[in-house]
Amino acid sequence: MNLSFGRDYLAIPGPSVSPERVLNAMHTSAPNIYEGALVDMVADMVPDLKAVARTQGHVAIYIANGHGAWEAAAMNLLAPGDMALVLDTGRFAGIWGTVCERLGVKTQLIDFGKKSAVIPERVEAALRADTEHKIKAVLTVQTDTATGVRNDIPLLREAIDAAEHPALLMVDCIASLACDVYEMDAWGVDVTVAASQKGLMTPPGLGFVFLNDKARAAQNPNVSYYWDWAPRIEPERFYQFFGGTAPTHHLLGLRAALDLIAEEGGIEAVWKRHAVLARTAWAAFEAWGQGGPMEINVADPAIRSHAVTALSLGAHDGSRLRRWVQDNGGVTLGIGLGMSAPGDPNGDGFFRLGHMGHINAHMMLGALGVIESGLKALSIPHGDGALSAAAQVIAEA
Amino acid sequence: MNLSFGRDYLAIPGPSVSPERVLNAMHTSAPNIYEGALVDMVADMVPDLKAVARTQGHVAIYIANGHGAWEAAAMNLLAPGDMALVLDTGRFAGIWGTVCERLGVKTQLIDFGKKSAVIPERVEAALRADTEHKIKAVLTVQTDTATGVRNDIPLLREAIDAAEHPALLMVDCIASLACDVYEMDAWGVDVTVAASQKGLMTPPGLGFVFLNDKARAAQNPNVSYYWDWAPRIEPERFYQFFGGTAPTHHLLGLRAALDLIAEEGGIEAVWKRHAVLARTAWAAFEAWGQGGPMEINVADPAIRSHAVTALSLGAHDGSRLRRWVQDNGGVTLGIGLGMSAPGDPNGDGFFRLGHMGHINAHMMLGALGVIESGLKALSIPHGDGALSAAAQVIAEA
Amino acid sequence: MNLSFGRDYLAIPGPSVSPERVLNAMHTSAPNIYEGALVDMVADMVPDLKAVARTQGHVAIYIANGHGAWEAAAMNLLAPGDMALVLDTGRFAGIWGTVCERLGVKTQLIDFGKKSAVIPERVEAALRADTEHKIKAVLTVQTDTATGVRNDIPLLREAIDAAEHPALLMVDCIASLACDVYEMDAWGVDVTVAASQKGLMTPPGLGFVFLNDKARAAQNPNVSYYWDWAPRIEPERFYQFFGGTAPTHHLLGLRAALDLIAEEGGIEAVWKRHAVLARTAWAAFEAWGQGGPMEINVADPAIRSHAVTALSLGAHDGSRLRRWVQDNGGVTLGIGLGMSAPGDPNGDGFFRLGHMGHINAHMMLGALGVIESGLKALSIPHGDGALSAAAQVIAEA
Amino acid sequence: MNLSFGRDYLAIPGPSVSPERVLNAMHTSAPNIYEGALVDMVADMVPDLKAVARTQGHVAIYIANGHGAWEAAAMNLLAPGDMALVLDTGRFAGIWGTVCERLGVKTQLIDFGKKSAVIPERVEAALRADTEHKIKAVLTVQTDTATGVRNDIPLLREAIDAAEHPALLMVDCIASLACDVYEMDAWGVDVTVAASQKGLMTPPGLGFVFLNDKARAAQNPNVSYYWDWAPRIEPERFYQFFGGTAPTHHLLGLRAALDLIAEEGGIEAVWKRHAVLARTAWAAFEAWGQGGPMEINVADPAIRSHAVTALSLGAHDGSRLRRWVQDNGGVTLGIGLGMSAPGDPNGDGFFRLGHMGHINAHMMLGALGVIESGLKALSIPHGDGALSAAAQVIAEA
Repeated sequence: MNLSFGRDYLAIPGPSVSPERVLNAMHTSAPNIYEGALVDMVADMVPDLKAVARTQGHVAIYIANGHGAWEAAAMNLLAPGDMALVLDTGRFAGIWGTVCERLGVKTQLIDFGKKSAVIPERVEAALRADTEHKIKAVLTVQTDTATGVRNDIPLLREAIDAAEHPALLMVDCIASLACDVYEMDAWGVDVTVAASQKGLMTPPGLGFVFLNDKARAAQNPNVSYYWDWAPRIEPERFYQFFGGTAPTHHLLGLRAALDLIAEEGGIEAVWKRHAVLARTAWAAFEAWGQGGPMEINVADPAIRSHAVTALSLGAHDGSRLRRWVQDNGGVTLGIGLGMSAPGDPNGDGFFRLGHMGHINAHMMLGALGVIESGLKALSIPHGDGALSAAAQVIAEA
Repeated sequence: MNLSFGRDYLAIPGPSVSPERVLNAMHTSAPNIYEGALVDMVADMVPDLKAVARTQGHVAIYIANGHGAWEAAAMNLLAPGDMALVLDTGRFAGIWGTVCERLGVKTQLIDFGKKSAVIPERVEAALRADTEHKIKAVLTVQTDTATGVRNDIPLLREAIDAAEHPALLMVDCIASLACDVYEMDAWGVDVTVAASQKGLMTPPGLGFVFLNDKARAAQNPNVSYYWDWAPRIEPERFYQFFGGTAPTHHLLGLRAALDLIAEEGGIEAVWKRHAVLARTAWAAFEAWGQGGPMEINVADPAIRSHAVTALSLGAHDGSRLRRWVQDNGGVTLGIGLGMSAPGDPNGDGFFRLGHMGHINAHMMLGALGVIESGLKALSIPHGDGALSAAAQVIAEA
Repeated sequence: MNLSFGRDYLAIPGPSVSPERVLNAMHTSAPNIYEGALVDMVADMVPDLKAVARTQGHVAIYIANGHGAWEAAAMNLLAPGDMALVLDTGRFAGIWGTVCERLGVKTQLIDFGKKSAVIPERVEAALRADTEHKIKAVLTVQTDTATGVRNDIPLLREAIDAAEHPALLMVDCIASLACDVYEMDAWGVDVTVAASQKGLMTPPGLGFVFLNDKARAAQNPNVSYYWDWAPRIEPERFYQFFGGTAPTHHLLGLRAALDLIAEEGGIEAVWKRHAVLARTAWAAFEAWGQGGPMEINVADPAIRSHAVTALSLGAHDGSRLRRWVQDNGGVTLGIGLGMSAPGDPNGDGFFRLGHMGHINAHMMLGALGVIESGLKALSIPHGDGALSAAAQVIAEA
Repeated sequence: MNLSFGRDYLAIPGPSVSPERVLNAMHTSAPNIYEGALVDMVADMVPDLKAVARTQGHVAIYIANGHGAWEAAAMNLLAPGDMALVLDTGRFAGIWGTVCERLGVKTQLIDFGKKSAVIPERVEAALRADTEHKIKAVLTVQTDTATGVRNDIPLLREAIDAAEHPALLMVDCIASLACDVYEMDAWGVDVTVAASQKGLMTPPGLGFVFLNDKARAAQNPNVSYYWDWAPRIEPERFYQFFGGTAPTHHLLGLRAALDLIAEEGGIEAVWKRHAVLARTAWAAFEAWGQGGPMEINVADPAIRSHAVTALSLGAHDGSRLRRWVQDNGGVTLGIGLGMSAPGDPNGDGFFRLGHMGHINAHMMLGALGVIESGLKALSIPHGDGALSAAAQVIAEA
């Protein structure tokens, strides 16, 4: 029966659950955009935002979603005819590559499949092969939202350095910022792309491009007015900072979200929480998998995202389960995006659990509990002890 | 570690979780109280409110909490010197009795302890003994929020009728309305007392007294201005309906809560959900109890509330567990109110789980999951398979 | 035509406009009522609340409206058979007297009409005549919401003292607290009654009784459970502080309202703003009255409320004007409560403008502007220069 | 003194005042973006949005501000090397031209100054001179937000037709949509650009490009991924409709804003209200100008915007007045954007009053009242009777 009346848990891999504090901060009539409290607040907020990405560099804030931020990053650095090396570990780096191509950029794509992280040796080899240094940038994601793969960015940096290649390293952290450990400066990342609606707990509508001075110096002079990051990183006039009217309410929401991060104990505390909750989910998934078709898409925990887990339920039970937990339990899981398997061309066996942002032990264990109810109700075979194993991870954290 | 950042679940037995719809309805600048939308809305809402209590009678809405509604009900029917028979099954009927005494009413209290429901035979005997019919009213609770006992109101009615006694039957449904099955008219209840902040999912601030024509005719002429129910049940002038200024924002919130009930499928659907979720909790508690000190206060499921469960964890681990789940998991359990046990004079072994109002499978299984984590973390002995058993109840619902 | 789409201004004399900050503070899921942030907040808030009434005494917070707070104050001090001297300057002291009578209290009422303040000499004479000191309390309002009369409380105190009478002085500041200058302790007031929904800018639902030690010592021992102020002024246990469940959301709203007062510069700044805005309104009303029937009910500005102004428009144009400004301009004026005049038995010539709480120059001048539009549209004669005169008051403030 | 505590009125020319209904609609935890209520809602909303622009064509919704929508419109129709004829009547068409140039588009700009509308004869002449039809598009604004000029779009269409030139007509209605009469289809406009934060009463964050089939057929094949309007106007898959993650909360806000428009009586009623309120403001400004330096920037009412009025106060009193009304009265006026005058190189004499969106008679008359107070307080000479004249316009509407 329908037991979903109550507080819904949207467990798709973004947008993530909106904290009440963020929504309340946005519940205000329009503020002045020329001077006053909002303008002062943004100046103060920029350092806090950069701290989340662990950078002393710059950040350009766009009214855009992650796809817009991709385009911004690409257009600021890559001119038509330039070459980008795209490292795909599922779906999203590939689409970013498409965004680049639509700008006239040439792309060389290395496909690491849907279950593996970037293999540094292959990157190094590709860069060594580019003896004329036509490749201007290496593009990848930290977390691929479709597959749940998490790439090891320091290893990638080492590969580029080992190849002695001058290409810029551009990393999409849309699904991982404020979820997975990420050290932009320490890891030698030149450009980081992110968005508001996942780890940053703010409704969709803001895209971020973080950049270091090396990237800034390499800017493509023919960038469009809206995407040009130059005026956005030198906010002498607030109005130009946002390429026109400022995203007033989203800025207020973002401020509240950054406050929540500070109150939790800073970004390290947030990373730790995500790590524990991810392991909590995996413990249950692995236990269910012992007695049935449940399988985490990425076998090796070391390369699994702490923000989203992609799974399969054999031939086609992913969609059935997803539907059941929403209709009966108040938990909305993500669809299996772009996944397929033998005997399951439409990917109905796949689904995803988002565990990013404003999520705690209660929400995670509740989502897992409803999934177990669904497995039972739908008579999908599954191993025992999953929920207990999950609770054990929390207990030991 | 602290894994509580995320959406908190307040699982105390009231106030219950506030639905976003209710809070949004209350987020409005003050409306006109003399005419217009609010006034029209209240007239339309009264039938919906009465439908929740299953009565064709009347309802007086007070700006008050449940204690205020108790006083209102008592003063409207009982004059100084009148006698009330108070049937106590834990804590709250007794306090209602105290409220009566403070009005000069004499009370005769039958104490059924903290683990038992009202025993109709004892009530019948007491009424038969009152040959002069000095007892004007029989007072009890449907659910005792402290003990989790649920009384069988139809049996109580039968006892009164069997004794051929004219006393009015007054039932406190503060913790049970819109949670447990309740049929005011069909069960022959004369006065029902309730409040906004539990099953009705609206912040504390409204008390309700439902009454039938028999109770109305029996009104004490010396009732105070504020508690007088007469002008409140004949709302010719909205202003008098609330004994002064109307509780504008609470009325808007209550309207939204009644809409939620309608959208779920009406009060029967709400009752069913509460019944299943209560059994879900009990399944886990009983499983834990198989291997440790966990014990539901009320042994017989037939007399357990569907809105709150009181438990003990042996000598003194209730408070430890309560603290752990709040600090680490984001779940706030209720304290053990007025309970004690041998070796536990302060009742530190007791705690309560509220499962009333805006609560679904996800929230219940999440709360149980966090409790299991707490039991493990604190090394409190407990049986296995509790979470799986709970998930099974949901699966079979 | 309908030019009301936009932000409505509810200019009735309470409930007053709800500030966004207050509503946002109330937009939160239910908090724990047994311990934690809310409990700590209330302890800190009590001194701020007392500062608004300028007292070092005590305050009991009730879930009730102003009528409930009247009943609370009356029952705590007056037993059946006690005598109260009621000083009526319009409507509300008289109703408070009725509330007393319903409790069995005897009342002696001095009626000062609907256009005059309390005349101290008459009070002194009445008290002198009470040689046996049967009068236990003198009751009056600071501002009568119906007539707009403001009484001079220090003069009243002097009259009581001059008569060497021990009666307690009880003042209803429901419509005046945080609007008009009020010094409870300095003026020798024993009990002050107030409510949340006017100067305190919080939705209806909280009633306040401030009391000094003299009043506390004089408490009637037979007070009811709910109205008993004793446990409410010694908040050892938060739960008892509110006679049952706490008004969680209203407390959060009140905290935000008190913050607004502090940010404006404290209660003196709030008083000053109300004084200027009241004079602004009067300047316009007086100018209109130079050329037509508009007349402020209270002729002498020295005894006019700074929170509400009652007016008449001759025979019956008050209601027409009220309707017009609401339908066409987005301003809701108050009805003429309990007023009548020769040739206008239903009081259709009367209306009221509330100017209390969250109101600024823009809102006041806008309301006056719409009234002028209404006078013109309805061809009601009126003097010139009213709006300019009003703007001048603001300019000179 | 500071009389600004109360409800602030942000009277800058956008973002406009946020209605409570819009903010409440946005106060919801993140919804599912793959299916369900939000997805269904958007499909239903698109026709209502097109109705506001009076078109049967298409609309692409972007997460962007107006500058982003400019770039989207430009890139979809104009390739590098294409020519655009830009008709500047103040500031914003010129910036749109700059946006085009940044995309490699050549622009021919006709500057009509800051006080005049587009002169059709000059446009016709320019188009006739373009015998090779190199001009692909004519760009202009309906309302220039800086100058308050409103262009006559039908006359412009006639000029293009008279020249028998195939150029597309692209009109920026960012500041005028849902304020000024606008008939996209009837007037033969090919592309309309707008944004959420002015007449559409929704926080900044959405840009709109409306287009007809002629524009659609003329699409530049080399448009970027994010700006490409093709997938956005054929919403087979919701996810692609927004070029990535949907702007969930803004869509909910926009739906509420469109509901408000419907409830007022549809877009014609909204236009009428804006026309009356604009005339109300002008009546006051003109009266003040009779006795002092106040001057509406655009002399001819026929070419004044109904959404924003730019004014000057002689040498340098605009900024003083602006500051005074904000600090003392709670009204925030707009700065004089890009205006200057002899003896006033920084444009300190200029200011603007926004009168767009959620604004009614009360708010307009209140803003004008505070301005009069400011003129008096600052001893800026001004004519008499301004507020009365303004109230008269409302009275006669």
